[in-house]
Amino acid sequence: MLELNVTAPPAISPPPGKEQQAAGVGILLQISMLVLSFVVGHVLRRHKFYYVPEASASLIIGLLVGVLANISNTETSIRRWFNFHEEFFFLFLLPPIIFQSGFSLAPKPFFSNFGAIVTFAILGTFIASVVTGFLVYLGGLTFLMYQLPLVECLMFGALISATDPVTVLSIFQELGTDVNLYALVFGESVLNDAMAISLYRTMSSVQSHATSGQNFFLLVLSFLETFVGSMSSGVGVGFISALLFKYAGLDIDNLQNLECCLFVLFPYFSYMLAEGLGLSGIVSILFTGIVMKHYTFSNLSESSQRFAAAFFHLISSLAETFVFIYMGFDIAMEEHSWSHLGFIFFSIIFIGVARAVNVSVCANLVNMVRPANRQIPAKHQKALWYSGLRGAMAFALALQSVHDLPEAHGKTIFSATTAIVVVTVILIGGSTGTMLEALEVVGDGQDGALETFESNNGYIAPTYQEGTSSGSKLKMKLKEFHRSTTSFTALDKNYLTPFFTTQNDDEDDSDDSIHNASR
Amino acid sequence: MLELNVTAPPAISPPPGKEQQAAGVGILLQISMLVLSFVVGHVLRRHKFYYVPEASASLIIGLLVGVLANISNTETSIRRWFNFHEEFFFLFLLPPIIFQSGFSLAPKPFFSNFGAIVTFAILGTFIASVVTGFLVYLGGLTFLMYQLPLVECLMFGALISATDPVTVLSIFQELGTDVNLYALVFGESVLNDAMAISLYRTMSSVQSHATSGQNFFLLVLSFLETFVGSMSSGVGVGFISALLFKYAGLDIDNLQNLECCLFVLFPYFSYMLAEGLGLSGIVSILFTGIVMKHYTFSNLSESSQRFAAAFFHLISSLAETFVFIYMGFDIAMEEHSWSHLGFIFFSIIFIGVARAVNVSVCANLVNMVRPANRQIPAKHQKALWYSGLRGAMAFALALQSVHDLPEAHGKTIFSATTAIVVVTVILIGGSTGTMLEALEVVGDGQDGALETFESNNGYIAPTYQEGTSSGSKLKMKLKEFHRSTTSFTALDKNYLTPFFTTQNDDEDDSDDSIHNASR
Repeated sequence: MLELNVTAPPAISPPPGKEQQAAGVGILLQISMLVLSFVVGHVLRRHKFYYVPEASASLIIGLLVGVLANISNTETSIRRWFNFHEEFFFLFLLPPIIFQSGFSLAPKPFFSNFGAIVTFAILGTFIASVVTGFLVYLGGLTFLMYQLPLVECLMFGALISATDPVTVLSIFQELGTDVNLYALVFGESVLNDAMAISLYRTMSSVQSHATSGQNFFLLVLSFLETFVGSMSSGVGVGFISALLFKYAGLDIDNLQNLECCLFVLFPYFSYMLAEGLGLSGIVSILFTGIVMKHYTFSNLSESSQRFAAAFFHLISSLAETFVFIYMGFDIAMEEHSWSHLGFIFFSIIFIGVARAVNVSVCANLVNMVRPANRQIPAKHQKALWYSGLRGAMAFALALQSVHDLPEAHGKTIFSATTAIVVVTVILIGGSTGTMLEALEVVGDGQDGALETFESNNGYIAPTYQEGTSSGSKLKMKLKEFHRSTTSFTALDKNYLTPFFTTQNDDEDDSDDSIHNASR
Repeated sequence: MLELNVTAPPAISPPPGKEQQAAGVGILLQISMLVLSFVVGHVLRRHKFYYVPEASASLIIGLLVGVLANISNTETSIRRWFNFHEEFFFLFLLPPIIFQSGFSLAPKPFFSNFGAIVTFAILGTFIASVVTGFLVYLGGLTFLMYQLPLVECLMFGALISATDPVTVLSIFQELGTDVNLYALVFGESVLNDAMAISLYRTMSSVQSHATSGQNFFLLVLSFLETFVGSMSSGVGVGFISALLFKYAGLDIDNLQNLECCLFVLFPYFSYMLAEGLGLSGIVSILFTGIVMKHYTFSNLSESSQRFAAAFFHLISSLAETFVFIYMGFDIAMEEHSWSHLGFIFFSIIFIGVARAVNVSVCANLVNMVRPANRQIPAKHQKALWYSGLRGAMAFALALQSVHDLPEAHGKTIFSATTAIVVVTVILIGGSTGTMLEALEVVGDGQDGALETFESNNGYIAPTYQEGTSSGSKLKMKLKEFHRSTTSFTALDKNYLTPFFTTQNDDEDDSDDSIHNASR
């Protein structure tokens, strides 16, 4: 699903020993920055200074060190270790982050909002991409900004529409928002990556004349194919792991290490399986995370449970922090063409407009079929609009576009994306807290997403008040989907949980203990 | 210290998406092999089948899959993911393994045998390298085997003298041997890598005419410089981490994740610091492991202690298993020149002879200065001779030599090393258990190394029976060293432990709890 250009480190060999030493210095610097980020993040959180969330702090540290390295003219052999390699990002940094988000996800709000999430991810991303693309094209025609061909505008629209789960997650989890809003923002940001990547890819093949005139429905079909395939493979791997741990009997006998090794390997297996099949690894590992938490996890011995929860938390926070540092550093190091400030300025405005169109269309569509008590309120729509942060995903695709497009065009897109990432992460990320408070959708503290869920049951439970709305075909379909969600809960309770797990009713206890253990 | 040729993946870009998919398939295969190795290893251990230790099982799995991949003619893009990259090995796989061995090390037997270990590592490795080199040269002159120039013979001698900590550790820990023997074998194998690498490097620069006639003393001096420097930097980083965790107050406040993140980053920091300074990362991270276990560890909160112990155990067993699979696969995939079977056969005999010379000379030297009750007994000498397994370290250096030497020579050396690795790991590794039992140096079960230590105190404690031996200068020096070891224990108890840790007397309790947690 993901498309990459392997930009491996150049294979020149300087005097023996030198290269290894440069690698040492490079990695040393990265570790120091990681340590610094953790310490700064900790200090900021201690003092409840929410205007610079941890993500922004890491990005700023990366930027600063990058600027310093640029000024001091570091050896290229050291610098080589800092280039943002898309491959490294997609294969090693992204999987733990997404798995952890699936693993720590409260499944109920996610599934009860599943229809809305899919609408936002598929239709919304399509709308946002096309609107951005056309606006940028029109801007070029009217000499407001650097002129790009329509196809390239649409490519830019697609890549910039990938709202980034990494950025969004780290900021939302920090603040603790309403559980439904969180589920919407998070779900959209994870699933729309797959859509954005597939859109980008289609446009890219149109641009290189490999295919032409692939229409909208084919596109949606291919997206759905990928999505369903990835979801099934992810769920499948999760179920296999549940059965393995149920019957292998590793929870006795002091086999904690073996148990943990196997448990840790499964998510990565799922990611790579999906990638190997040409599907979306992100979607697959997300569902593996959800299934493994729900079924496999309770088959582990108690000490392994505590370990696994802490392990994934640790790995994902390391990866997350590293992504921001890495991105900041690379932004400072890469050559930019700042000559087109107009392009940057207007594209920021245009993506705001495009996201407004996206959110209002999709929200209205969802509200049309939802009963009155489950409507997406206006303040949630505003929060959704505001929280469309762009991050590592857009950045990685923009780096890709430098290879795909004519030089000046690629550079312009890359610089614009870079600027948008910095602006959204630092400015919007820093003000999201204030914004969410102003909209009164903030939970009470760190664990808000979970606590609001408990106190908020009426809103979540799919209660059906038939007759409150007119019955169009689409509506009936969606209602059926809702009903299948409820019947899924029954199915889960009566068949899946007994089949895939050893215990049955102490789920909630173990959930609590993990949350204590992982913090 | 380490010298490397960056053999990064070639930067060709096939059709977009394809490359990512190939990477997915490659990594997927690797994960499957890891899972298989763990399962096979578990089954073998369950049935107490010690003729195939886990290391051999992994190597064999790697070999088999490699052969299959070779026959089935897999795409090169997938194959690319399996090439043994020395850089990846030295930067990412080796550090966790060595750290874990330092971290899980019982420090007393290691330090009470420190003099002997250093003798074996420096003098012993030098003897073994030179003897092997000259024997191979003589073999060439007498047409017994493929003829190589003397310098290249010495290079081969150096690289093949690196007894591998990875291989040795995994087999010895499994069996549980006498604690002093374990300390000797393990200590030698870790420290002699630094010596072997530095010897190899010197010979390599002589070969390429960069330097000529660097003499023995300069070599030893440079080794000692590297060694002392690496040790100091490792110990220094360890002490800094101890102070940080003592005063940062992270063990309260539910900051387990932050605490663990920082704790996990320190060892890697130490490794990269040493590499960046041109020192030996292996030696540095080993001492960081020892110091962090002894001081930093007790400053952690209890849950973090449990987590950290399990974490390092997990990471190192993953890395260890992966190294063997990786090596087995690469052995099956690389082109070998099997035309020189004579070379392989005789070099196996020669390294046996060289190791016998090495062990008997060093052991006699050590016994000369040790009191009667601390002599290295003949059966330990035999075990030491037998346990000189060659593994990943020799393999990585041999890969290096393919780049450094004329083609036919490099290939011959590489094939011989490969064969030696397979023979020592599979045959000797498989029979080490029987051998150790025959020599009656086996402990009682998994945890022998620790248990024998308790029951064996008289042998370990440096008791001085003055006047049992004549007083040469060397002897006096070494005695002083012994005395400094005892006074180190006092220094530790009275100054270091109170200064670097928060608690003082519950060390032993926490040690126990870790051992329970990590298994």
